[in-house]
Amino acid sequence: MRKYYLIILAVAAAAGTAAPQQRDRRLIDLTYSFSSQTIYWPTAEGFKLAVDAEGMTEKGYYYSAYSFSAAEHGGTHMDAPVHFARGMATIDQIPLTRVVAPGILVDVQKQAAADRDYQVTAQDLMEWEKSNGRIPDGCILLLRTGWGKFYPDKIKYLGTDKKGPEGVSQLHFPGLDPAAAGWLAANRKISAIGIDTASIDYGQSKLFESHQALYKEGLFAIENVANLHELPAKGFEIIALPMKIQGGSGAPVRIIAVMK
Amino acid sequence: MRKYYLIILAVAAAAGTAAPQQRDRRLIDLTYSFSSQTIYWPTAEGFKLAVDAEGMTEKGYYYSAYSFSAAEHGGTHMDAPVHFARGMATIDQIPLTRVVAPGILVDVQKQAAADRDYQVTAQDLMEWEKSNGRIPDGCILLLRTGWGKFYPDKIKYLGTDKKGPEGVSQLHFPGLDPAAAGWLAANRKISAIGIDTASIDYGQSKLFESHQALYKEGLFAIENVANLHELPAKGFEIIALPMKIQGGSGAPVRIIAVMK
Repeated sequence: MRKYYLIILAVAAAAGTAAPQQRDRRLIDLTYSFSSQTIYWPTAEGFKLAVDAEGMTEKGYYYSAYSFSAAEHGGTHMDAPVHFARGMATIDQIPLTRVVAPGILVDVQKQAAADRDYQVTAQDLMEWEKSNGRIPDGCILLLRTGWGKFYPDKIKYLGTDKKGPEGVSQLHFPGLDPAAAGWLAANRKISAIGIDTASIDYGQSKLFESHQALYKEGLFAIENVANLHELPAKGFEIIALPMKIQGGSGAPVRIIAVMK
Repeated sequence: MRKYYLIILAVAAAAGTAAPQQRDRRLIDLTYSFSSQTIYWPTAEGFKLAVDAEGMTEKGYYYSAYSFSAAEHGGTHMDAPVHFARGMATIDQIPLTRVVAPGILVDVQKQAAADRDYQVTAQDLMEWEKSNGRIPDGCILLLRTGWGKFYPDKIKYLGTDKKGPEGVSQLHFPGLDPAAAGWLAANRKISAIGIDTASIDYGQSKLFESHQALYKEGLFAIENVANLHELPAKGFEIIALPMKIQGGSGAPVRIIAVMK
Protein backbone atom coordinates (compact mmCIF):
# COMPACT_ATOMS: atom_id res chain seq x y z
CA MET A 1 0.00 0.00 0.00
CA ARG A 2 1.36 3.35 -1.00
CA LYS A 3 0.72 6.43 1.06
CA TYR A 4 1.51 9.86 -0.17
CA TYR A 5 2.44 12.71 2.09
CA LEU A 6 2.05 16.27 1.00
CA ILE A 7 5.19 18.08 1.91
CA ILE A 8 5.14 21.77 1.47
CA LEU A 9 8.72 22.91 1.55
CA ALA A 10 9.96 25.69 3.73
CA VAL A 11 10.55 27.90 0.74
CA ALA A 12 6.92 27.70 -0.27
CA ALA A 13 5.81 28.51 3.26
CA ALA A 14 8.23 31.43 3.35
CA ALA A 15 6.75 32.72 0.10
CA GLY A 16 3.38 32.83 1.81
CA THR A 17 1.63 30.57 -0.67
CA ALA A 18 1.16 27.44 1.42
CA ALA A 19 -2.11 27.53 3.29
CA PRO A 20 -1.96 25.94 6.74
CA GLN A 21 -4.15 22.98 5.80
CA GLN A 22 -1.75 21.96 3.04
CA ARG A 23 1.00 21.02 5.48
CA ASP A 24 1.48 17.38 6.41
CA ARG A 25 -1.76 16.30 4.84
CA ARG A 26 -1.91 12.67 3.86
CA LEU A 27 -3.51 11.67 0.57
CA ILE A 28 -4.76 8.12 0.04
CA ASP A 29 -5.68 6.81 -3.39
CA LEU A 30 -8.97 4.86 -3.31
CA THR A 31 -8.81 4.04 -7.03
CA TYR A 32 -7.92 0.85 -8.93
CA SER A 33 -5.93 1.36 -12.09
CA PHE A 34 -7.52 0.67 -15.48
CA SER A 35 -6.00 -2.27 -17.37
CA SER A 36 -7.02 -5.54 -19.00
CA GLN A 37 -7.45 -6.89 -15.44
CA THR A 38 -9.99 -4.25 -14.44
CA ILE A 39 -13.27 -5.76 -13.27
CA TYR A 40 -16.38 -5.00 -15.34
CA TRP A 41 -19.94 -6.31 -15.19
CA PRO A 42 -20.20 -9.69 -16.97
CA THR A 43 -22.18 -8.12 -19.82
CA ALA A 44 -19.94 -5.05 -20.30
CA GLU A 45 -16.96 -4.37 -22.54
CA GLY A 46 -13.77 -4.20 -20.53
CA PHE A 47 -10.97 -1.67 -20.66
CA LYS A 48 -8.72 -1.76 -23.72
CA LEU A 49 -5.55 0.22 -24.41
CA ALA A 50 -4.17 0.44 -27.96
CA VAL A 51 -0.71 1.65 -28.93
CA ASP A 52 -0.75 4.66 -31.26
CA ALA A 53 2.98 5.34 -30.90
CA GLU A 54 5.80 4.02 -28.73
CA GLY A 55 9.48 4.57 -29.41
CA MET A 56 11.93 6.89 -31.12
CA THR A 57 10.46 9.06 -33.85
CA GLU A 58 12.17 9.83 -37.16
CA LYS A 59 12.89 13.26 -35.74
CA GLY A 60 15.01 11.82 -32.98
CA TYR A 61 12.89 12.13 -29.84
CA TYR A 62 11.00 9.48 -27.82
CA TYR A 63 7.22 9.53 -28.05
CA SER A 64 4.47 7.28 -26.69
CA ALA A 65 0.70 7.70 -27.00
CA TYR A 66 -2.24 5.34 -26.63
CA SER A 67 -5.98 5.21 -27.20
CA PHE A 68 -8.45 3.54 -24.87
CA SER A 69 -12.00 2.28 -24.76
CA ALA A 70 -14.31 0.94 -22.06
CA ALA A 71 -17.83 0.79 -20.73
CA GLU A 72 -18.60 3.63 -18.30
CA HIS A 73 -19.49 1.30 -15.45
CA GLY A 74 -16.40 -0.72 -14.60
CA GLY A 75 -13.36 -0.43 -12.39
CA THR A 76 -13.50 2.41 -9.90
CA HIS A 77 -16.31 4.51 -11.33
CA MET A 78 -19.07 6.93 -10.43
CA ASP A 79 -22.67 6.44 -11.46
CA ALA A 80 -24.79 9.46 -12.35
CA PRO A 81 -28.41 9.55 -11.15
CA VAL A 82 -29.58 9.15 -14.78
CA HIS A 83 -28.08 5.63 -14.81
CA PHE A 84 -31.29 4.43 -13.10
CA ALA A 85 -33.56 7.49 -13.14
CA ARG A 86 -34.84 9.08 -16.33
CA GLY A 87 -34.22 12.80 -16.66
CA MET A 88 -31.91 13.04 -13.66
CA ALA A 89 -28.35 14.44 -13.70
CA THR A 90 -25.78 13.06 -16.12
CA ILE A 91 -22.22 12.58 -14.88
CA ASP A 92 -21.03 15.98 -16.16
CA GLN A 93 -23.90 17.69 -14.34
CA ILE A 94 -23.04 16.49 -10.84
CA PRO A 95 -21.97 19.59 -8.86
CA LEU A 96 -18.41 19.57 -7.56
CA THR A 97 -19.74 20.26 -4.06
CA ARG A 98 -21.30 16.79 -4.09
CA VAL A 99 -18.00 15.05 -4.79
CA VAL A 100 -15.62 17.11 -2.65
CA ALA A 101 -17.09 16.44 0.75
CA PRO A 102 -16.49 15.00 4.24
CA GLY A 103 -16.31 11.21 4.26
CA ILE A 104 -17.47 8.58 6.72
CA LEU A 105 -16.87 4.83 6.73
CA VAL A 106 -19.40 2.21 7.84
CA ASP A 107 -17.68 -1.12 8.42
CA VAL A 108 -19.80 -4.24 7.85
CA GLN A 109 -16.97 -6.69 7.30
CA LYS A 110 -18.14 -9.11 9.95
CA GLN A 111 -21.64 -9.37 8.57
CA ALA A 112 -20.36 -9.77 4.99
CA ALA A 113 -17.73 -12.35 5.97
CA ALA A 114 -20.56 -14.52 7.32
CA ASP A 115 -22.79 -14.05 4.24
CA ARG A 116 -21.48 -13.14 0.79
CA ASP A 117 -25.01 -12.02 -0.14
CA TYR A 118 -25.22 -9.68 2.86
CA GLN A 119 -27.23 -6.49 2.43
CA VAL A 120 -26.31 -3.58 4.70
CA THR A 121 -29.30 -2.61 6.85
CA ALA A 122 -30.55 0.69 8.25
CA GLN A 123 -29.71 -0.85 11.63
CA ASP A 124 -26.05 -1.09 10.55
CA LEU A 125 -26.12 2.62 9.71
CA MET A 126 -27.73 3.46 13.04
CA GLU A 127 -25.04 1.44 14.82
CA TRP A 128 -22.45 3.73 13.22
CA GLU A 129 -24.41 6.72 14.55
CA LYS A 130 -24.39 5.32 18.09
CA SER A 131 -20.58 5.51 18.11
CA ASN A 132 -19.98 8.49 15.85
CA GLY A 133 -22.97 10.80 15.99
CA ARG A 134 -25.54 11.49 13.31
CA ILE A 135 -24.51 10.82 9.69
CA PRO A 136 -23.48 14.34 8.67
CA ASP A 137 -25.36 16.27 6.02
CA GLY A 138 -23.43 16.49 2.78
CA CYS A 139 -21.10 13.58 3.49
CA ILE A 140 -19.95 10.80 1.22
CA LEU A 141 -20.84 7.56 3.02
CA LEU A 142 -18.48 4.68 2.28
CA LEU A 143 -19.48 1.07 2.93
CA ARG A 144 -16.64 -1.32 3.73
CA THR A 145 -17.70 -4.91 3.15
CA GLY A 146 -14.12 -6.16 3.07
CA TRP A 147 -14.50 -7.27 -0.57
CA GLY A 148 -11.61 -5.04 -1.61
CA LYS A 149 -9.16 -7.71 -0.49
CA PHE A 150 -10.46 -9.99 -3.28
CA TYR A 151 -9.88 -7.50 -6.13
CA PRO A 152 -9.08 -8.30 -9.00
CA ASP A 153 -9.84 -12.02 -8.51
CA LYS A 154 -13.17 -12.21 -10.33
CA ILE A 155 -14.30 -15.49 -8.76
CA LYS A 156 -13.79 -14.16 -5.25
CA TYR A 157 -14.81 -10.56 -5.92
CA LEU A 158 -17.81 -11.07 -8.22
CA GLY A 159 -18.60 -14.70 -7.43
CA THR A 160 -17.90 -15.69 -11.04
CA ASP A 161 -15.54 -15.14 -13.94
CA LYS A 162 -18.20 -16.05 -16.52
CA LYS A 163 -19.31 -13.46 -19.07
CA GLY A 164 -22.81 -12.59 -20.28
CA PRO A 165 -26.16 -13.53 -18.69
CA GLU A 166 -24.72 -16.74 -17.22
CA GLY A 167 -22.16 -14.63 -15.34
CA VAL A 168 -24.84 -12.23 -14.14
CA SER A 169 -26.88 -15.09 -12.66
CA GLN A 170 -23.84 -16.23 -10.67
CA LEU A 171 -22.89 -12.86 -9.13
CA HIS A 172 -22.42 -13.00 -5.37
CA PHE A 173 -21.16 -10.05 -3.33
CA PRO A 174 -22.57 -7.81 -0.58
CA GLY A 175 -24.50 -4.61 -1.19
CA LEU A 176 -26.86 -2.11 0.39
CA ASP A 177 -30.35 -3.31 1.31
CA PRO A 178 -33.05 -1.41 -0.66
CA ALA A 179 -34.88 -0.61 2.59
CA ALA A 180 -31.68 0.96 3.96
CA ALA A 181 -31.27 2.92 0.72
CA GLY A 182 -34.81 4.22 1.11
CA TRP A 183 -34.17 5.07 4.77
CA LEU A 184 -31.02 7.00 3.84
CA ALA A 185 -32.75 8.92 1.06
CA ALA A 186 -35.67 9.82 3.32
CA ASN A 187 -33.92 10.47 6.63
CA ARG A 188 -30.36 11.62 6.03
CA LYS A 189 -28.89 14.17 3.62
CA ILE A 190 -25.79 12.49 2.28
CA SER A 191 -24.09 13.64 -0.94
CA ALA A 192 -23.26 10.21 -2.31
CA ILE A 193 -22.47 6.66 -1.30
CA GLY A 194 -19.47 4.48 -2.09
CA ILE A 195 -18.79 0.75 -1.78
CA ASP A 196 -15.90 -1.72 -2.17
CA THR A 197 -17.93 -4.07 -4.38
CA ALA A 198 -19.01 -3.96 -8.03
CA SER A 199 -22.48 -2.56 -7.27
CA ILE A 200 -24.40 -0.75 -4.54
CA ASP A 201 -27.03 -3.51 -5.02
CA TYR A 202 -25.83 -6.95 -3.94
CA GLY A 203 -24.80 -9.51 -6.56
CA GLN A 204 -28.05 -11.44 -6.59
CA SER A 205 -30.21 -8.32 -7.09
CA LYS A 206 -32.58 -8.61 -10.03
CA LEU A 207 -34.21 -5.18 -9.97
CA PHE A 208 -31.39 -2.95 -8.62
CA GLU A 209 -33.78 -1.49 -6.11
CA SER A 210 -31.13 0.32 -4.09
CA HIS A 211 -29.97 2.07 -7.25
CA GLN A 212 -33.58 2.99 -7.98
CA ALA A 213 -34.31 4.23 -4.44
CA LEU A 214 -31.20 6.42 -4.32
CA TYR A 215 -31.01 7.73 -7.87
CA LYS A 216 -34.61 8.91 -8.16
CA GLU A 217 -33.73 11.23 -5.26
CA GLY A 218 -30.65 12.56 -7.02
CA LEU A 219 -28.22 10.40 -5.04
CA PHE A 220 -25.62 8.23 -6.74
CA ALA A 221 -23.00 5.58 -6.00
CA ILE A 222 -19.24 5.19 -6.45
CA GLU A 223 -18.45 1.52 -7.02
CA ASN A 224 -15.32 -0.67 -6.82
CA VAL A 225 -13.76 1.78 -4.37
CA ALA A 226 -10.26 0.62 -3.37
CA ASN A 227 -8.24 0.69 -0.14
CA LEU A 228 -11.06 1.29 2.34
CA HIS A 229 -8.95 -0.53 4.93
CA GLU A 230 -6.89 2.67 5.09
CA LEU A 231 -9.76 4.76 6.45
CA PRO A 232 -11.11 5.42 9.95
CA ALA A 233 -14.83 5.79 10.75
CA LYS A 234 -14.69 9.56 10.22
CA GLY A 235 -12.40 12.56 10.15
CA PHE A 236 -11.37 12.65 6.50
CA GLU A 237 -12.41 14.33 3.28
CA ILE A 238 -13.26 12.59 0.01
CA ILE A 239 -12.39 14.06 -3.40
CA ALA A 240 -14.01 11.99 -6.16
CA LEU A 241 -13.57 13.58 -9.59
CA PRO A 242 -15.22 11.74 -12.49
CA MET A 243 -14.14 12.01 -16.11
CA LYS A 244 -16.42 14.74 -17.49
CA ILE A 245 -18.36 12.75 -20.11
CA GLN A 246 -21.08 14.97 -21.57
CA GLY A 247 -24.39 13.17 -21.15
CA GLY A 248 -22.70 10.19 -19.53
CA SER A 249 -24.58 7.83 -17.19
CA GLY A 250 -21.32 7.30 -15.30
CA ALA A 251 -17.57 7.51 -15.76
CA PRO A 252 -14.20 6.40 -14.49
CA VAL A 253 -13.52 8.34 -11.29
CA ARG A 254 -10.32 9.17 -9.46
CA ILE A 255 -11.25 9.05 -5.80
CA ILE A 256 -8.88 10.01 -3.00
CA ALA A 257 -9.12 10.59 0.74
CA VAL A 258 -7.52 13.55 2.44
CA MET A 259 -6.64 12.69 6.04
CA LYS A 260 -6.83 15.52 8.51
CA MET B 1 -19.74 30.04 -16.40
CA ARG B 2 -20.88 28.00 -13.45
CA LYS B 3 -19.43 28.44 -10.02
CA TYR B 4 -20.05 25.99 -7.26
CA TYR B 5 -20.10 26.91 -3.64
CA LEU B 6 -19.49 24.35 -0.95
CA ILE B 7 -22.09 24.84 1.68
CA ILE B 8 -21.66 22.84 4.84
CA LEU B 9 -24.98 22.92 6.57
CA ALA B 10 -25.40 23.93 10.17
CA VAL B 11 -26.31 20.39 11.15
CA ALA B 12 -22.98 19.05 9.88
CA ALA B 13 -21.11 21.76 11.75
CA ALA B 14 -23.08 20.95 14.90
CA ALA B 15 -22.13 17.29 14.52
CA GLY B 16 -18.48 18.34 14.58
CA THR B 17 -17.66 16.84 11.21
CA ALA B 18 -17.15 19.93 9.10
CA ALA B 19 -13.52 21.05 9.21
CA PRO B 20 -13.08 24.84 9.13
CA GLN B 21 -11.54 24.89 5.67
CA GLN B 22 -14.60 23.20 4.21
CA ARG B 23 -16.84 26.17 4.92
CA ASP B 24 -17.56 28.62 2.14
CA ARG B 25 -14.89 27.21 -0.10
CA ARG B 26 -15.45 27.93 -3.76
CA LEU B 27 -14.74 25.22 -6.31
CA ILE B 28 -14.13 26.13 -9.96
CA ASP B 29 -14.18 23.52 -12.70
CA LEU B 30 -11.26 23.98 -15.11
CA THR B 31 -12.34 21.04 -17.29
CA TYR B 32 -14.04 20.87 -20.69
CA SER B 33 -16.60 18.09 -21.07
CA PHE B 34 -15.89 15.16 -23.40
CA SER B 35 -18.18 14.97 -26.43
CA SER B 36 -18.01 14.80 -30.21
CA GLN B 37 -17.02 18.49 -30.08
CA THR B 38 -13.96 17.89 -27.89
CA ILE B 39 -10.75 19.12 -29.49
CA TYR B 40 -8.09 16.52 -30.34
CA TRP B 41 -4.81 16.71 -32.21
CA PRO B 42 -5.41 16.58 -36.00
CA THR B 43 -3.90 13.07 -36.15
CA ALA B 44 -5.75 11.63 -33.12
CA GLU B 45 -9.01 9.75 -32.76
CA GLY B 46 -11.66 11.91 -31.13
CA PHE B 47 -14.02 11.09 -28.29
CA LYS B 48 -16.88 8.72 -29.11
CA LEU B 49 -19.82 7.69 -26.93
CA ALA B 50 -21.89 4.62 -27.86
CA VAL B 51 -25.28 3.72 -26.40
CA ASP B 52 -25.33 0.34 -24.65
CA ALA B 53 -28.76 0.88 -23.08
CA GLU B 54 -31.20 3.78 -22.78
CA GLY B 55 -34.82 3.42 -21.76
CA MET B 56 -37.26 1.25 -19.82
CA THR B 57 -36.14 -2.34 -19.29
CA GLU B 58 -38.42 -5.37 -19.57
CA LYS B 59 -38.31 -5.50 -15.78
CA GLY B 60 -39.95 -2.09 -15.50
CA TYR B 61 -37.16 0.26 -14.45
CA TYR B 62 -35.27 2.92 -16.41
CA TYR B 63 -31.65 2.17 -17.30
CA SER B 64 -29.00 3.98 -19.34
CA ALA B 65 -25.39 3.01 -19.93
CA TYR B 66 -22.77 3.95 -22.52
CA SER B 67 -19.31 2.99 -23.68
CA PHE B 68 -16.65 5.44 -24.80
CA SER B 69 -13.35 5.60 -26.65
CA ALA B 70 -10.72 8.24 -27.26
CA ALA B 71 -7.06 9.02 -27.63
CA GLU B 72 -5.40 9.82 -24.29
CA HIS B 73 -4.23 13.25 -25.43
CA GLY B 74 -7.32 15.30 -26.22
CA GLY B 75 -9.74 17.56 -24.42
CA THR B 76 -8.65 18.55 -20.92
CA HIS B 77 -5.98 15.96 -20.24
CA MET B 78 -2.78 15.34 -18.33
CA ASP B 79 0.42 14.12 -19.96
CA ALA B 80 2.69 11.73 -18.09
CA PRO B 81 6.47 12.25 -18.32
CA VAL B 82 6.73 9.04 -20.39
CA HIS B 83 4.79 10.75 -23.20
CA PHE B 84 8.09 12.34 -24.29
CA ALA B 85 10.73 10.65 -22.08
CA ARG B 86 11.46 6.93 -22.22
CA GLY B 87 11.31 5.13 -18.90
CA MET B 88 9.78 8.03 -16.98
CA ALA B 89 6.54 7.87 -14.97
CA THR B 90 3.32 6.67 -16.60
CA ILE B 91 0.08 8.48 -15.76
CA ASP B 92 -0.88 6.03 -12.98
CA GLN B 93 2.53 6.51 -11.34
CA ILE B 94 2.30 10.27 -10.84
CA PRO B 95 2.14 10.83 -7.05
CA LEU B 96 -1.01 12.49 -5.76
CA THR B 97 1.13 15.13 -4.05
CA ARG B 98 2.13 16.37 -7.49
CA VAL B 99 -1.45 16.97 -8.60
CA VAL B 100 -2.99 18.32 -5.39
CA ALA B 101 -0.92 21.44 -4.95
CA PRO B 102 -0.95 25.24 -4.70
CA GLY B 103 -1.65 26.92 -8.02
CA ILE B 104 -0.34 30.09 -9.62
CA LEU B 105 -1.43 31.82 -12.83
CA VAL B 106 0.88 33.59 -15.28
CA ASP B 107 -1.11 35.80 -17.65
CA VAL B 108 0.38 36.34 -21.11
CA GLN B 109 -2.82 37.32 -22.89
CA LYS B 110 -1.44 40.58 -24.23
CA GLN B 111 1.60 38.96 -25.79
CA ALA B 112 -0.47 36.12 -27.29
CA ALA B 113 -3.14 38.48 -28.62
CA ALA B 114 -0.42 40.23 -30.64
CA ASP B 115 1.09 36.97 -31.93
CA ARG B 116 -0.79 33.69 -32.23
CA ASP B 117 2.57 31.89 -32.38
CA TYR B 118 3.76 33.51 -29.15
CA GLN B 119 6.04 31.46 -26.90
CA VAL B 120 6.06 32.35 -23.21
CA THR B 121 9.54 33.42 -22.12
CA ALA B 122 11.53 33.06 -18.91
CA GLN B 123 11.24 36.84 -18.73
CA ASP B 124 7.43 36.49 -18.59
CA LEU B 125 7.82 34.12 -15.64
CA MET B 126 10.22 36.51 -13.91
CA GLU B 127 7.74 39.34 -14.42
CA TRP B 128 5.22 37.28 -12.44
CA GLU B 129 7.79 36.90 -9.67
CA LYS B 130 8.36 40.65 -9.50
CA SER B 131 4.73 41.12 -8.49
CA ASN B 132 4.07 37.91 -6.61
CA GLY B 133 7.30 36.60 -5.16
CA ARG B 134 9.29 33.57 -6.17
CA ILE B 135 7.42 30.79 -7.98
CA PRO B 136 6.70 28.48 -5.02
CA ASP B 137 8.20 25.03 -4.81
CA GLY B 138 5.64 22.31 -5.46
CA CYS B 139 3.16 24.55 -7.26
CA ILE B 140 1.15 23.89 -10.41
CA LEU B 141 1.95 26.77 -12.77
CA LEU B 142 -0.88 27.70 -15.12
CA LEU B 143 -0.27 29.71 -18.29
CA ARG B 144 -3.16 31.87 -19.47
CA THR B 145 -2.77 32.74 -23.13
CA GLY B 146 -6.44 33.71 -23.49
CA TRP B 147 -7.01 30.91 -26.02
CA GLY B 148 -9.73 29.40 -23.81
CA LYS B 149 -12.21 31.91 -25.21
CA PHE B 150 -11.92 30.24 -28.63
CA TYR B 151 -12.73 26.70 -27.42
CA PRO B 152 -14.20 24.60 -29.11
CA ASP B 153 -13.89 26.55 -32.38
CA LYS B 154 -11.09 24.56 -34.03
CA ILE B 155 -10.13 27.21 -36.57
CA LYS B 156 -9.68 29.84 -33.86
CA TYR B 157 -8.32 27.53 -31.15
CA LEU B 158 -6.01 25.29 -33.19
CA GLY B 159 -5.60 27.46 -36.27
CA THR B 160 -7.18 24.77 -38.44
CA ASP B 161 -10.00 22.27 -38.60
CA LYS B 162 -8.16 20.01 -41.02
CA LYS B 163 -7.27 16.46 -39.98
CA GLY B 164 -4.05 14.53 -40.44
CA PRO B 165 -0.59 15.87 -41.40
CA GLU B 166 -2.11 18.78 -43.34
CA GLY B 167 -3.87 19.88 -40.15
CA VAL B 168 -0.68 19.55 -38.11
CA SER B 169 1.21 21.81 -40.52
CA GLN B 170 -1.45 24.49 -40.06
CA LEU B 171 -1.55 24.54 -36.25
CA HIS B 172 -1.21 28.02 -34.77
CA PHE B 173 -1.57 28.73 -31.05
CA PRO B 174 0.72 30.01 -28.27
CA GLY B 175 2.88 27.79 -26.07
CA LEU B 176 5.87 27.79 -23.75
CA ASP B 177 9.27 28.64 -25.20
CA PRO B 178 11.71 25.70 -24.90
CA ALA B 179 14.29 27.97 -23.28
CA ALA B 180 11.72 28.96 -20.64
CA ALA B 181 10.88 25.28 -20.11
CA GLY B 182 14.56 24.56 -19.56
CA TRP B 183 14.86 27.54 -17.20
CA LEU B 184 11.89 26.32 -15.16
CA ALA B 185 13.21 22.77 -14.95
CA ALA B 186 16.66 23.98 -13.87
CA ASN B 187 15.81 26.87 -11.58
CA ARG B 188 12.39 26.35 -10.02
CA LYS B 189 10.78 23.30 -8.41
CA ILE B 190 7.25 23.30 -9.76
CA SER B 191 5.07 20.17 -9.64
CA ALA B 192 3.50 20.54 -13.07
CA ILE B 193 2.46 23.10 -15.66
CA GLY B 194 -0.93 23.76 -17.25
CA ILE B 195 -2.01 25.75 -20.30
CA ASP B 196 -5.22 26.87 -22.01
CA THR B 197 -4.08 25.65 -25.43
CA ALA B 198 -3.82 22.21 -27.03
CA SER B 199 -0.12 21.79 -26.25
CA ILE B 200 2.60 23.17 -23.99
CA ASP B 201 4.64 23.56 -27.20
CA TYR B 202 3.27 26.20 -29.56
CA GLY B 203 1.33 25.11 -32.64
CA GLN B 204 4.20 25.48 -35.09
CA SER B 205 6.60 23.38 -33.01
CA LYS B 206 8.19 20.55 -34.95
CA LEU B 207 10.26 18.88 -32.22
CA PHE B 208 8.15 19.51 -29.10
CA GLU B 209 11.22 20.76 -27.31
CA SER B 210 9.35 22.16 -24.32
CA HIS B 211 7.78 18.73 -23.76
CA GLN B 212 11.23 17.20 -24.03
CA ALA B 213 12.88 19.70 -21.67
CA LEU B 214 10.22 19.29 -19.00
CA TYR B 215 9.43 15.57 -19.22
CA LYS B 216 13.00 14.32 -19.04
CA GLU B 217 13.11 16.03 -15.63
CA GLY B 218 9.91 14.31 -14.48
CA LEU B 219 7.73 17.35 -15.08
CA PHE B 220 4.54 17.14 -17.12
CA ALA B 221 1.80 19.32 -18.61
CA ILE B 222 -1.96 19.61 -18.32
CA GLU B 223 -3.37 20.81 -21.64
CA ASN B 224 -6.64 22.35 -22.82
CA VAL B 225 -7.29 23.69 -19.32
CA ALA B 226 -10.61 25.57 -19.17
CA ASN B 227 -11.83 28.68 -17.39
CA LEU B 228 -8.51 30.25 -16.48
CA HIS B 229 -10.23 33.64 -16.60
CA GLU B 230 -11.74 32.68 -13.23
CA LEU B 231 -8.39 32.58 -11.46
CA PRO B 232 -6.22 35.23 -9.76
CA ALA B 233 -2.40 35.26 -9.94
CA LYS B 234 -2.11 33.15 -6.76
CA GLY B 235 -3.94 32.10 -3.60
CA PHE B 236 -5.73 28.97 -4.76
CA GLU B 237 -5.17 25.24 -4.79
CA ILE B 238 -5.32 22.97 -7.83
CA ILE B 239 -6.70 19.43 -7.70
CA ALA B 240 -6.02 17.64 -11.01
CA LEU B 241 -6.96 13.96 -10.86
CA PRO B 242 -6.27 11.95 -14.04
CA MET B 243 -8.05 8.76 -15.00
CA LYS B 244 -5.78 6.04 -13.61
CA ILE B 245 -4.76 4.30 -16.85
CA GLN B 246 -2.15 1.65 -16.05
CA GLY B 247 0.89 2.35 -18.21
CA GLY B 248 -0.82 5.32 -19.84
CA SER B 249 1.18 8.15 -21.44
CA GLY B 250 -1.62 10.53 -20.45
CA ALA B 251 -5.31 10.55 -19.60
CA PRO B 252 -8.43 12.65 -19.35
CA VAL B 253 -8.12 14.73 -16.20
CA ARG B 254 -10.69 16.43 -14.03
CA ILE B 255 -9.02 19.62 -12.87
CA ILE B 256 -10.55 22.02 -10.38
CA ALA B 257 -9.44 25.05 -8.42
CA VAL B 258 -10.20 25.51 -4.74
CA MET B 259 -10.39 29.21 -3.89
CA LYS B 260 -9.28 30.14 -0.40
